Amino acid sequence: MSDSVNNQLLSTPQDFNFGPGEENALLLDCGRKLYEVNLRYEVYGKLSAKKDNAILIHHALTGDAHVAGKHSPEDRKPGWWDEMVGPGKFIDTDKYFVICSNVIGGCSGSTGPRSIDPATGKLYNLDFPVVTIADMVRAQKRLIDHLGIEKLLAVVGGSMGGMQSLEWGRLYPDMVKSVIAIATTSQLGSQSIAFNWVGSQAIRSDINFNNGEYTVNPEHGLATARMLAHITYLSDESMSRKFGRNLQDAESYSFAFKRDFAVESYLEYQGQRFVERFDANSYLYITRAIDYYDLANGGDLAEAMKSYKADLLVVSFSSDWLFTTAQSEVIVKAALANDLNCSFCEIESSYGHDAFLLEVDRLGALIRDFLHNQQEEF
Amino acid sequence: MSDSVNNQLLSTPQDFNFGPGEENALLLDCGRKLYEVNLRYEVYGKLSAKKDNAILIHHALTGDAHVAGKHSPEDRKPGWWDEMVGPGKFIDTDKYFVICSNVIGGCSGSTGPRSIDPATGKLYNLDFPVVTIADMVRAQKRLIDHLGIEKLLAVVGGSMGGMQSLEWGRLYPDMVKSVIAIATTSQLGSQSIAFNWVGSQAIRSDINFNNGEYTVNPEHGLATARMLAHITYLSDESMSRKFGRNLQDAESYSFAFKRDFAVESYLEYQGQRFVERFDANSYLYITRAIDYYDLANGGDLAEAMKSYKADLLVVSFSSDWLFTTAQSEVIVKAALANDLNCSFCEIESSYGHDAFLLEVDRLGALIRDFLHNQQEEF
Repeated sequence: MSDSVNNQLLSTPQDFNFGPGEENALLLDCGRKLYEVNLRYEVYGKLSAKKDNAILIHHALTGDAHVAGKHSPEDRKPGWWDEMVGPGKFIDTDKYFVICSNVIGGCSGSTGPRSIDPATGKLYNLDFPVVTIADMVRAQKRLIDHLGIEKLLAVVGGSMGGMQSLEWGRLYPDMVKSVIAIATTSQLGSQSIAFNWVGSQAIRSDINFNNGEYTVNPEHGLATARMLAHITYLSDESMSRKFGRNLQDAESYSFAFKRDFAVESYLEYQGQRFVERFDANSYLYITRAIDYYDLANGGDLAEAMKSYKADLLVVSFSSDWLFTTAQSEVIVKAALANDLNCSFCEIESSYGHDAFLLEVDRLGALIRDFLHNQQEEF
Repeated sequence: MSDSVNNQLLSTPQDFNFGPGEENALLLDCGRKLYEVNLRYEVYGKLSAKKDNAILIHHALTGDAHVAGKHSPEDRKPGWWDEMVGPGKFIDTDKYFVICSNVIGGCSGSTGPRSIDPATGKLYNLDFPVVTIADMVRAQKRLIDHLGIEKLLAVVGGSMGGMQSLEWGRLYPDMVKSVIAIATTSQLGSQSIAFNWVGSQAIRSDINFNNGEYTVNPEHGLATARMLAHITYLSDESMSRKFGRNLQDAESYSFAFKRDFAVESYLEYQGQRFVERFDANSYLYITRAIDYYDLANGGDLAEAMKSYKADLLVVSFSSDWLFTTAQSEVIVKAALANDLNCSFCEIESSYGHDAFLLEVDRLGALIRDFLHNQQEEF
């Protein structure tokens, strides 16, 4: 459902509803079932006759299905990875059929905590079951079946997207030719879990939160959580270079608890933009999925990856202190222990974790060449 | 006013009130004046006849005047640096006369936002003037004058305490024989300012905060700010070793937004203990003083330190990512550019910023020997 008008990729969001009843319910890791699940998704390019050119892209924590192009020529901004994905781009939609769906638990069209619970007719809110990365992947598998695709050329994602990609390779080894895992990890360390906990407490502390039964998004708490997370997406170096101790407006300190420093204004801006497009309950659910994620299932990662058949491309960024190069190397070692084909690259960058969205040229070239080889072998 | 009973150092908190009227008011960097300022302080050991053995210790963000010993033998815990300071200890109160005062803006006896404004008879709250590290030091100078001490053998502090020590050397070069600056910096970088901003937003977001006019401490927000700060006091390595992904109580995830992970329970515990002893408004004021602190006054640090006469001992810890070794080296270079005697040591430690409170043996030995040499030269 994508088209190109005046060299502008246009895409249309679509919905895939699993349908009613027990037979269509999605069984989750927590033991509960989700009924009448909807996945909002977009596709770009054309599925080949041989169905050998399908790539599933996974979005990160706060992303959505709108990867590339615009929904209408009047849209102000294209999708979140538009520099990477499109006609003639690194993930070339003239060659590949690209799919991306909003995760379950999300707030951009797929079933999540602000959806109506069909059993009660009311919003789920915190009655929504806690979902895992594997649950997100199981839902996506239904979509891929629905699209009639037996094997994906690649699953691709950065950050939480990379977790989903890695999980795909483990859960559905016969459906995945290759896994591209960018700026990600097989499991969070305690520091990252701790940051997420603080963010969740900021949301819960908001005067409007009301234990998830809010009528107005608890903006202050959600913005605070976002600001904290945002610090972990940048590097100390890039923040110092961009902001240092620069003051925002004035020549000197306000002595009045205002946003004196440029970095404070920047964070506030990021927080405000964020609460306009993201839901607080979804934020709690998705960060919990990230905390819980453990590709090793509490044991040895090489053992947990024994089911793997996919080739891997693992990419880290030198200044990423959220998901470090050392964490990528853990994945690479486990892959090699299973005699898998695994390419690894650490890209030198000062952008921190955000580099996976910013270092498009260097990352894109790696992905383009890897995909080319994968298709030759398919 | 300290005494030793059964080898147990006992100390008594004392108050020094500047007295009423314009002539006793403290002029602050913001241009406002504080009237009838009180400093809560403690002393340990005896001032020598020559008055050449006085050491002023500066506490960090959440510390207080109670450095060492107990107020009564029944106290459960001694002062915050009891392993360092006492009879026969590294800062030996059999030799030295040790002083520590609670900073202005604080909540442990000295004048701060929860004090009564003599002009209105009401709590200052957010009408309290924004104070700076230099203001804290100016208040301490009054205390040192009051105690009849013309020149301090040393000023000593870690973290924000180190900032005060460094500022003493700049503001009162003839009153300071030496400066011991531990795990500190001449100015915060933008990442640290950003973390403080997020913490302040968590406090302001609390349902009980009421723009500082609270009757009940806004515990949830203050605990959240503390938890965030606490993460920055630890190292990724020490957190991984101590907590990893260990679960607190259960064998598996709760799938219910509980404190599943040990690190979450630990942070919550730290947050809860903290709000019992610390005031939210004070937290806002003191972190703002830290943000504003810049020994270089917005210019060149070596130039700003031209007034310096003191010898310096600068100590950093290898895994401290809040105030890094590189930031200590900036101070050392500026000192050396002014031909000052400056010793520098980076202590290998995995404890992160908290190492200044934990690595007592190695840090203490450095301080003991440095003080010994300083007294020889006094």
